[in-house]
Amino acid sequence: MNKIYVVGIGPGAYEQMTIQAVKVLESCDVIVGYTVYVDLVKEHFADKEFLTTPMKQEVKRCELAFEEAKKGQIVAMICSGDAGVYGMAGLIYEVGEAYPEVEVEIIPGITAALSGASVLGAPLIHDFAVISLSDLLTPWEKIEARVRSAAEADFSICLYNPSSKKRADYLMKACDYMLEYKSPETICGIVRNIGREGEESEVLTLQQLRDTTVDMFTTVFIGNSQTKVVAGKIVTPRGYTVE
Amino acid sequence: MNKIYVVGIGPGAYEQMTIQAVKVLESCDVIVGYTVYVDLVKEHFADKEFLTTPMKQEVKRCELAFEEAKKGQIVAMICSGDAGVYGMAGLIYEVGEAYPEVEVEIIPGITAALSGASVLGAPLIHDFAVISLSDLLTPWEKIEARVRSAAEADFSICLYNPSSKKRADYLMKACDYMLEYKSPETICGIVRNIGREGEESEVLTLQQLRDTTVDMFTTVFIGNSQTKVVAGKIVTPRGYTVE
Ligand SMILES: C[S@@+](CC[C@H](N)C(=O)[O-])C[C@H]1O[C@@H](n2cnc3c(N)ncnc32)[C@H](O)[C@@H]1O
Ligand SMILES: C[S@@+](CC[C@H](N)C(=O)[O-])C[C@H]1O[C@@H](n2cnc3c(N)ncnc32)[C@H](O)[C@@H]1O
Repeated sequence: MNKIYVVGIGPGAYEQMTIQAVKVLESCDVIVGYTVYVDLVKEHFADKEFLTTPMKQEVKRCELAFEEAKKGQIVAMICSGDAGVYGMAGLIYEVGEAYPEVEVEIIPGITAALSGASVLGAPLIHDFAVISLSDLLTPWEKIEARVRSAAEADFSICLYNPSSKKRADYLMKACDYMLEYKSPETICGIVRNIGREGEESEVLTLQQLRDTTVDMFTTVFIGNSQTKVVAGKIVTPRGYTVE
Repeated sequence: MNKIYVVGIGPGAYEQMTIQAVKVLESCDVIVGYTVYVDLVKEHFADKEFLTTPMKQEVKRCELAFEEAKKGQIVAMICSGDAGVYGMAGLIYEVGEAYPEVEVEIIPGITAALSGASVLGAPLIHDFAVISLSDLLTPWEKIEARVRSAAEADFSICLYNPSSKKRADYLMKACDYMLEYKSPETICGIVRNIGREGEESEVLTLQQLRDTTVDMFTTVFIGNSQTKVVAGKIVTPRGYTVE
């Protein structure tokens, strides 16, 4: 059998993996991944062969996985969170066009939007939009348009990749767009290192979020017009009328 | 200890639960839930006390959970998918205002957007919007505005609650809004009974989706302008330039 499983390992804690993900990692021959994620799972699957590639070598990492699978190895390629959310699930199919003999299966995982939401309370309950602030592969105009549309239509919004060294002010810019449509008092939250050592979270207003510095290990949540704080937790009601 | 865990059990298959969710269900005293979800987990946690309430009795179900927790029972309230996505995570905090002695913890799960995406390939990889077509608690004008905004800003879109007996033509209406901004050839997918008996999926165009009838056990995916089909799977590229 020539097979690659693309496995979402969740935010970081071993216990936040699904049983299915654990079974795949237990039964595979080779685990392929970005160094940081391999380090997160290594101790639990110590008898496996591990192949790592640094960040930004995604195509190479996929090719490596296919070459192993071609040899008859059962390969698990791991991603943080869910492989289908800013992860490797798409690229693996694209690279896979050159390896028709290899079967691909995606094993879903808990993405940062869901794990982060559970730390803050229930910020996403109703309709929400997930947007990455990284302009590495997306023109900033497109990101701006999406942030504006989502704010105007009163979505709850979850931002991935909210910052990096080169784009320290992107979150501020995104908040300024949202402030054109959303109240400065809109309830927001940030969660850093979800499921990992040093997990921390904060509830704040959109105005305060604008002037907050976050890093790339952070996921950011902006409520809709109904979002409120209940006993320190962010709660977006399920609808617009009261049951 | 007075404690309620609100546990997302994933789409249906036992193996799609997280280890954390399994541990909570193993260690609690009482499992509370909507009848259908309790039936999904019952065989795996046979020694527990089960309390069920029918659909549309959400407030009652929360009160039931708090009354049990107040007595000192460790309670697990289960939800399909993730409790924080059109689930009970919000309501439990609202009802909990009357029970300050009870601690609440949310255990995230795989929501239908992620499990459904993994069946279809990688439709959501980049920015996406999640919208419910249920107008039970949300005015249709708000739903229409969100569908239009998300389509205009070229989000991939995932629709929950796409249908019910009373609103058989809602998906058609939503498609008509999207067709004003998205090409009729836009790649779409539907997944029914994810992780359950009778799971089935289909890849189709937005024009075809418009004339397709789906039921309430279905999650619907609409690609962005870059979404394509690779070897039968839906793939949304991670960005707008090629690596
Ligand atoms: C390239 S994306 C990968 C997302 C991942 N595939 C997922 O589904 O969670 C990286 C971004 O995800 C978010 N993220 C992923 N894991 C996180 C964690 N453990 N804590 C906080 N944010 C996280 C951050 O916003 C980060 O900048
Ligand atoms: C009230 S919402 C509950 C969502 C749930 N909390 C989650 O996170 O998946 C119900 C809708 O979720 C979607 N859904 C939930 N479980 C599903 C499954 N196993 N297969 C297909 N769709 C599902 C359908 O669109 C359904 O109409």
